[in-house]
Amino acid sequence: MHRRHFARTLAAAGLGAAVLGLPTPLAAAPRARRVLPDADRVLARLRALRPFGLQPSGGLSRLGFSEADRDARVLVSQWMRDAGLTPRTDVAGNLIGSRAGQRDLPPLLLGSHIDSVPDGGHYDGQLGVVGALEVAQTLAESRIALRHPLEVVVWANEEGGLYGSRMVSGQFKPFELAAQSLSGRSIEEGVVFLGGDPSRLDAAVRRRGEVAGYLELHIEQGGTLEAVGDTIGIVEGIVGIRGWTVRVVGRANHAGTTPMDQRQDALLAAARFVDMVHRTVRADGGRAVGTVGRIEAQPGARNVIAGTVTCTLELRDLDDAVIQRLFAQVQAGAERIGQETTTRFAITEVHVNPPAPSDVRMRALVAAAAHGAGLRARAMPSGAGHDAQSMATIAPMGMIFVPSVGGISHAPGELTHDADCAHGVRVLLDTARAADDTLDG
Amino acid sequence: MHRRHFARTLAAAGLGAAVLGLPTPLAAAPRARRVLPDADRVLARLRALRPFGLQPSGGLSRLGFSEADRDARVLVSQWMRDAGLTPRTDVAGNLIGSRAGQRDLPPLLLGSHIDSVPDGGHYDGQLGVVGALEVAQTLAESRIALRHPLEVVVWANEEGGLYGSRMVSGQFKPFELAAQSLSGRSIEEGVVFLGGDPSRLDAAVRRRGEVAGYLELHIEQGGTLEAVGDTIGIVEGIVGIRGWTVRVVGRANHAGTTPMDQRQDALLAAARFVDMVHRTVRADGGRAVGTVGRIEAQPGARNVIAGTVTCTLELRDLDDAVIQRLFAQVQAGAERIGQETTTRFAITEVHVNPPAPSDVRMRALVAAAAHGAGLRARAMPSGAGHDAQSMATIAPMGMIFVPSVGGISHAPGELTHDADCAHGVRVLLDTARAADDTLDG
Repeated sequence: MHRRHFARTLAAAGLGAAVLGLPTPLAAAPRARRVLPDADRVLARLRALRPFGLQPSGGLSRLGFSEADRDARVLVSQWMRDAGLTPRTDVAGNLIGSRAGQRDLPPLLLGSHIDSVPDGGHYDGQLGVVGALEVAQTLAESRIALRHPLEVVVWANEEGGLYGSRMVSGQFKPFELAAQSLSGRSIEEGVVFLGGDPSRLDAAVRRRGEVAGYLELHIEQGGTLEAVGDTIGIVEGIVGIRGWTVRVVGRANHAGTTPMDQRQDALLAAARFVDMVHRTVRADGGRAVGTVGRIEAQPGARNVIAGTVTCTLELRDLDDAVIQRLFAQVQAGAERIGQETTTRFAITEVHVNPPAPSDVRMRALVAAAAHGAGLRARAMPSGAGHDAQSMATIAPMGMIFVPSVGGISHAPGELTHDADCAHGVRVLLDTARAADDTLDG
Repeated sequence: MHRRHFARTLAAAGLGAAVLGLPTPLAAAPRARRVLPDADRVLARLRALRPFGLQPSGGLSRLGFSEADRDARVLVSQWMRDAGLTPRTDVAGNLIGSRAGQRDLPPLLLGSHIDSVPDGGHYDGQLGVVGALEVAQTLAESRIALRHPLEVVVWANEEGGLYGSRMVSGQFKPFELAAQSLSGRSIEEGVVFLGGDPSRLDAAVRRRGEVAGYLELHIEQGGTLEAVGDTIGIVEGIVGIRGWTVRVVGRANHAGTTPMDQRQDALLAAARFVDMVHRTVRADGGRAVGTVGRIEAQPGARNVIAGTVTCTLELRDLDDAVIQRLFAQVQAGAERIGQETTTRFAITEVHVNPPAPSDVRMRALVAAAAHGAGLRARAMPSGAGHDAQSMATIAPMGMIFVPSVGGISHAPGELTHDADCAHGVRVLLDTARAADDTLDG
């Protein structure tokens, strides 16, 4: 059964054994001594991270560049040492624990993040960091050497906009240093706060060929794996994201004296916009998603018709052409709503992440590792953005998902069962070992 | 022409000469020496009030109980003295300037307010206060005595919820003392801040028979007078207002990983609610208005589906039964939207002002005064709430409107032409004198 399922998984991911340069998929099964990660240590470390930014709701607010973020890094640095890694903070504020390889090769990177959204959950990012540490520590304790140097990376301020990984991949633009992060610090101040040096960001940049491969374990943050009963997601790629700020200008006026047919109600227009975005994306019928998550009406009083409304718009898909087509429809819809309501829409793009496909060899290695562990796996896109998408621009990237209960994420109720955390770390370990064997000759 | 127009106006207001106890409407024309208010002084005082809470937008943010509110009262107190009035602050924080009458009668009150909404205009309330002061000062300078004592009242925190006038009319409930005002002060703190004593609010209450009559000059805040070319609005009554807080509960989730058909998007539900309110009220076809002016989505991030949204709802009509019928439709609509979007609506009534008809004798006196001044007048409802509605519960109430350019109010562009300010004050003066003659024998 496992063998058949594995073949189906590879086929679903558009893969065959050929991508591995191996005669059959099963040839990817570990040729070396099998070792297992310490699941209890993984779970204990996840628990140990919880207090850094814990909210009364039970959720986590460890905003990138915040005190809680910085304090948790001290703990992670200690764990790096425990895992036989030498920790340092690069100029971009990324925390990197490294150990040497047997050969003079570029390093294999395992990474994720420990910062969170406001009132988010305790698994997003955390699991990937703790999992990467566990891979390093299991290897060290088992005295297993890798050909490549190994680096465990805790990226700086992932949730704010993949800042640390974009600085490393060379995608970060200097003007962004002035932007405000949710911590209250600008990006520049935040990097300094974490121990980086924003005046020398060039020193953090890695070019194609300087990284052998990048692997990231992460919770799915959606409900697909749980719904179909699979344990491992073989990530096909990370969807592209475009973000806009939408400003609707009407006319503020008295809510009692202005007849319904004489209003230029910016909140009415914005409300129709929110509904139209939802209907437009659903009507498209694909896997694209569109969200308005933030809204503000001015002046914002019970007895005043809103004069201006500002809201966000975000569209995501694996194919940027789909995003662009949907946005054109949304723009046309906004135009129509503006005419109906005598308001004016101004939509400004503020954020672009291009889609980032994973490396086909990495997909096959993840599939093989899942198969080797007897775990059901499926190929799937990542709807969420991840630091892996930055790394995909400079190195072969692979990503492993484990199920999120109820598909809940970025919320206090975020949960991945203990067993699935352990399964994910095991697949990460085996994939990393296989990648060490396979990549760069 | 004036005579015909006056007769039409009275008829439109549902009035005949009989309500005055006079043989013909024209018998209401001043029997006494005609005096005119000083229009230049009125306009100069309006200008002098502008700096107290002036915004960069040109608008006015003189929130009730704010520093700007308190500071402006010091200036108005001085003007009261200039007008021959003795100023005092009652326990409710209302500023009252009074002078004695010729007879031992209950006082005639002229009042309005000087607090504003956030980023509102410079005429709402202000004109009525400056106009009332001008009536007192004109009478004093002309050595015209009234039979009734005269009081000019600056009500406390009108915009926040008619607090000062409701304390005087006995409608205020002690639990409201803990409510927050936009100034950041609770109602209790605000009353203290203005010099009142919230522990003795009973001392502010006036009962039926303790006030001979109440008159208020105010800008229309709608566009009707300007549209039809009339100068004076004879207010038939003040619409009832009911206000609700609407809470929509969905489920916060990741904006990238949650498919469109699996969302419980509270902001989508709230958007449909806003649109449904507008359509419901318009479909009713009457003069009712319905407004959602304030909205907040939580957690309120670009990349998180909103889990909860809080917004306001307000419905107004001259007939409370119409408000209740519309609200029942809105509730049914919210129920429907909740089912469509897998969210839950909780709608809580937070505010009720019953409709307040003006006194028919006062309407006739206003009509007569407008006619006597050669000004076109029309009977009309007030869509806005006013302190006059509190006073209507304990005394004969009359209200005079002057045109708002473009119907704009509660916004920086609020404007009433100088000539119309002057016309309004003249009608207020003549109506007050006629009321002094007519009311209470």
